[in-house]
Amino acid sequence: MLTCEAMAETQEQLIEGLKAFLRIPSVSTAPKHTADVRRCAEHVREMLVAAGLQNAQLIEAEGQHPLVYAEWLGAGEGKPTLLFYGHYDVQPADGEWVTPAFEPSVRDGNIYARGAADDKGQVFLQIKAVERLMERDGKLPVNVRFLIEGEEEVGGEHIEAFVASGDARLKADAAVVCDTEMFAPGLPTLCVGLRGIVYGEILVKSGDTDLHSGMYGGAAPNAIMAACEIVTALKDRDGRILIPGFADSVIPPSAAERAAWDRLPFNEAEYLEKEVKSTALTGEPGYDVFERTWARPTLEVHGIRGGFTGEGAKTVIPCEALVKVSMRLVAGQTVEVATRQLAEAVKAVCPKAVQAEFRPFHGAEPSLVRTDNVFIEKSAQAMQEVFGKETVYIRSGGSIPIVGLFERHLGIPSVMMGFGLPDDNLHAPNEKFHLANLFGGIDAMVRYLELLGS
Amino acid sequence: MLTCEAMAETQEQLIEGLKAFLRIPSVSTAPKHTADVRRCAEHVREMLVAAGLQNAQLIEAEGQHPLVYAEWLGAGEGKPTLLFYGHYDVQPADGEWVTPAFEPSVRDGNIYARGAADDKGQVFLQIKAVERLMERDGKLPVNVRFLIEGEEEVGGEHIEAFVASGDARLKADAAVVCDTEMFAPGLPTLCVGLRGIVYGEILVKSGDTDLHSGMYGGAAPNAIMAACEIVTALKDRDGRILIPGFADSVIPPSAAERAAWDRLPFNEAEYLEKEVKSTALTGEPGYDVFERTWARPTLEVHGIRGGFTGEGAKTVIPCEALVKVSMRLVAGQTVEVATRQLAEAVKAVCPKAVQAEFRPFHGAEPSLVRTDNVFIEKSAQAMQEVFGKETVYIRSGGSIPIVGLFERHLGIPSVMMGFGLPDDNLHAPNEKFHLANLFGGIDAMVRYLELLGS
Repeated sequence: MLTCEAMAETQEQLIEGLKAFLRIPSVSTAPKHTADVRRCAEHVREMLVAAGLQNAQLIEAEGQHPLVYAEWLGAGEGKPTLLFYGHYDVQPADGEWVTPAFEPSVRDGNIYARGAADDKGQVFLQIKAVERLMERDGKLPVNVRFLIEGEEEVGGEHIEAFVASGDARLKADAAVVCDTEMFAPGLPTLCVGLRGIVYGEILVKSGDTDLHSGMYGGAAPNAIMAACEIVTALKDRDGRILIPGFADSVIPPSAAERAAWDRLPFNEAEYLEKEVKSTALTGEPGYDVFERTWARPTLEVHGIRGGFTGEGAKTVIPCEALVKVSMRLVAGQTVEVATRQLAEAVKAVCPKAVQAEFRPFHGAEPSLVRTDNVFIEKSAQAMQEVFGKETVYIRSGGSIPIVGLFERHLGIPSVMMGFGLPDDNLHAPNEKFHLANLFGGIDAMVRYLELLGS
Repeated sequence: MLTCEAMAETQEQLIEGLKAFLRIPSVSTAPKHTADVRRCAEHVREMLVAAGLQNAQLIEAEGQHPLVYAEWLGAGEGKPTLLFYGHYDVQPADGEWVTPAFEPSVRDGNIYARGAADDKGQVFLQIKAVERLMERDGKLPVNVRFLIEGEEEVGGEHIEAFVASGDARLKADAAVVCDTEMFAPGLPTLCVGLRGIVYGEILVKSGDTDLHSGMYGGAAPNAIMAACEIVTALKDRDGRILIPGFADSVIPPSAAERAAWDRLPFNEAEYLEKEVKSTALTGEPGYDVFERTWARPTLEVHGIRGGFTGEGAKTVIPCEALVKVSMRLVAGQTVEVATRQLAEAVKAVCPKAVQAEFRPFHGAEPSLVRTDNVFIEKSAQAMQEVFGKETVYIRSGGSIPIVGLFERHLGIPSVMMGFGLPDDNLHAPNEKFHLANLFGGIDAMVRYLELLGS
């Protein structure tokens, strides 16, 4: 087995290669960075070519950031085909950074830059694993395809349309998605469940005009007050969601999965202090933190627009309010049913003199990956060999829509090998990627392909 | 008795005079209009000089808009002294206007311009009434002082400091405040009660950092959700305020006052459709609209700041929320007690894992004017003679802090003779002042001074 740890020169070269990738400010949400995003797509294509892949190309769509595709199908039909997925676009770099977000800097065994962990570092290790094998053997033990997108952070629809198109370039037996994290440093981790999401707005209207609270206060309805009444009628103080039927279809985790979670290294006091940074945890009675964040649905309010929110005082009775809300969904729930349930519940709890309506923006189905297949088993084995610890199976409370799309349109499972760490500051200042995970990730991916091809 | 109606030439001159006053964009909230506000103060001073008043002057304070003062004390000690109050500053002119806000235009018996009714038209009629008497008699039947401020719309503290100073220029027997409205067109109205106000923010904090709703949703507290829980715990769906002890000290209107309200021309369906512009009225069970808006205290939410309120979707669990709230207070309540009651109630209903605190910005005491004195009685008589209908006594749900300040610091009652109309669009586009009320207001004020001096 190759080990990056043993090859100091190669480590330096890898860091330089990743830095070049990280220097490109491929912020997909910012129109001013459109040219940078394209430059980054070209950079990915060149890395894929350099790794020995064939048919490397940009897949274009009007007004959207390009997909990058490449393949190597020389292992033949007797061998499985893996579809590597990742994204080359990054979040904006707001906030205070110790070193500039697009000038990568190595400190204390980490590389700091926007996109370091999310997701350039993980795309980079996929490509470098393939390159390593091609350099050593002149071939790969399995067939591979790469599909690297540039709109993950912006929720773009380019990849959804392409995945749904039935294009022959998507034919594969499993996807390898590197966009998650290890449960703890040095602990090899497979993510086997994702929550889905329904995001939208509750529009509340109490009249045609804002009113003066002196003249009309006491007799006129108030849209923000009504919005507060609606959301508190949808979820009680204990975190129980009151949308009728909402959680009835939830499939609870198996006893085995629950037992595995109990073995995870987890300190609730530390989680509260270092991650949640609050004075107490909340949530549904009768469920622990893992179940609350991985296996139970949520209803969250993200913001309320309406009324007066500037500095100082204005005595307006607002006639409209928009409440940004989302529901996270778990196995057994669907976007369609949950959307309908929330829409009906909003109508049902709407106060007198007020009209309220839920308007969905977008949704993603929840995913639960079966673990009794060779793609998951060999992945767990490969990571265990490289990192020297038993691979743990976790879920994520977040949503990765591509996993549901691969399942629905291609009928393939996703192997979510994650090499980020919980404190990598994704979407925040000082994002980092742990270099040991870069090197170990390459080794684990090399080993995974070897095991699958044997 | 002089009647403006009989003097067509004078009416034209009056309109031109008012137009010149209205053309000055004396927007006190906008720093760019600071010079205009001062120019307007000078204009008021010149009008007071032209009316024959003496000792006309600007009263200055560092960084604040000037007060305008003038006096005529020639009636001697045997006659009462009236303190005329009004304000020359205006609201900003946002929104869509039929004709520009600072280019006054006469249509259908109204003059349209920002400040037409609030409050330049009413200041103008006070000055012109005095001018008319001085021109006719060379003297006034009573002593008068004018105190016209330039910070009413901005809640400035200049006048409060001056009124509290004990300055000899404030010595008077009653104040005449023209900044309210008639209950209905042609119906002479004295406002004898004002609600007070406490305005502030409830600051809600659920942690040190915003969190991702995928990773932490279900286990972490949400500041906006907590804010909704707090406000719905302070006021129920029927409009009952749940702050302990809050309404215990409220002095209900007398049977006579309530009976007088029952005689007011009021159509609840029309009020709902044309003023409130909603589908239903709300409010405390057991009270009618007058009592709800004039004689009962309120708790209103004006806005919530926190979380994500832009276009589109962001899955943040907000760690902070600021809720803009106010309480309107009625006779029997005080700013100090209500502030303390709300602060304690916020603490008491604050959910687990969250810190919440009420921070008051400013307050104004409620006012209830005794009607059994000569200043009120003669005012009612003067308006009844001019407008040909019995003067009605109403209250206002709004707050005019100066009335409480005159009461507290000068020990004098305020006679609130209002000549605005309910549809004058104060603080809104297309503000207007009814010309019949301008002319009738001058006549009524002339008659009032005659009656008081006789």
